[in-house]
Amino acid sequence: MSIVRHESAGILSKAVEHGGLVHLAGIVADDLSQDAKGQAQQILAAIDALLAKCGSNKSKVLSAVIWVSDIRYRAPMNEAWSAWTDAKNLPARACIEAKLADPRALVEIMVVAAK
Amino acid sequence: MSIVRHESAGILSKAVEHGGLVHLAGIVADDLSQDAKGQAQQILAAIDALLAKCGSNKSKVLSAVIWVSDIRYRAPMNEAWSAWTDAKNLPARACIEAKLADPRALVEIMVVAAK
Amino acid sequence: MSIVRHESAGILSKAVEHGGLVHLAGIVADDLSQDAKGQAQQILAAIDALLAKCGSNKSKVLSAVIWVSDIRYRAPMNEAWSAWTDAKNLPARACIEAKLADPRALVEIMVVAAK
Repeated sequence: MSIVRHESAGILSKAVEHGGLVHLAGIVADDLSQDAKGQAQQILAAIDALLAKCGSNKSKVLSAVIWVSDIRYRAPMNEAWSAWTDAKNLPARACIEAKLADPRALVEIMVVAAK
Repeated sequence: MSIVRHESAGILSKAVEHGGLVHLAGIVADDLSQDAKGQAQQILAAIDALLAKCGSNKSKVLSAVIWVSDIRYRAPMNEAWSAWTDAKNLPARACIEAKLADPRALVEIMVVAAK
Repeated sequence: MSIVRHESAGILSKAVEHGGLVHLAGIVADDLSQDAKGQAQQILAAIDALLAKCGSNKSKVLSAVIWVSDIRYRAPMNEAWSAWTDAKNLPARACIEAKLADPRALVEIMVVAAK
């Protein structure tokens, strides 16, 4: 079964297709000057774009792991999440606190989706 | 390939079936007044119930990520884990420390199972 | 669809095959006296061995979650990662900080691969 990789550079691919699944990298915001909600909005837009490249979309997200650099950012991240998710097709998810690679990154999201 | 979601409410689905796989959300205990072992026992019982809804069971768990809010809770969580797992069908797993959404939550477990 | 488990002992299996996927446990180094780069090299060699048992290899890794016990270990871990990965077949990945089970463990890596 073939493996298709997208936006591969340096240390990772941002999306990997295999079988009926799409595995995305942990995505952080491009503009790290924004607050947690703004960063989450950027991330979710980037996830939309990556899923589209793989023939998938947010209604097909199966699961997500969400890291916030301070658990108090969960609430503003959730505002962006709730505005983004398809209410009839909610993913399984976990949201935990973790220090991220760039100290300005407040949110990182990694999803697995169906195609 | 169809996607079937269970216990969807608010921000997530607690279980998502697709292809031969079941993706569960990160599950925390209902009664957060219990200690880490008690919380883990509740979580594993909830995982049993969710897997059953998807036509799966604990002998088919492929992998698990276990977060404990203090790494010292790994030992009592493991007591519950060892009592629960099917010794002939042990999942791949990782157990790491992370601050969780509710400060009273001491354990959170997210699994992927086969159907 | 059958499930094949490898190196099952105690609380986990180090590798679980199902369908077209291989799920590995979070792997830590055997020699925890080494630095983060050395530990990462050991882990990646162990992942090679586990994938080989499952009829897979590093060119087929779909995604990886990498935990470092201090985010400053990301750079030396990445040196080992970049030397190991197949540049034409980079996995999706996330790297976050987390306290690990053994305080001497500086790196832990959990991958999902295709067969």
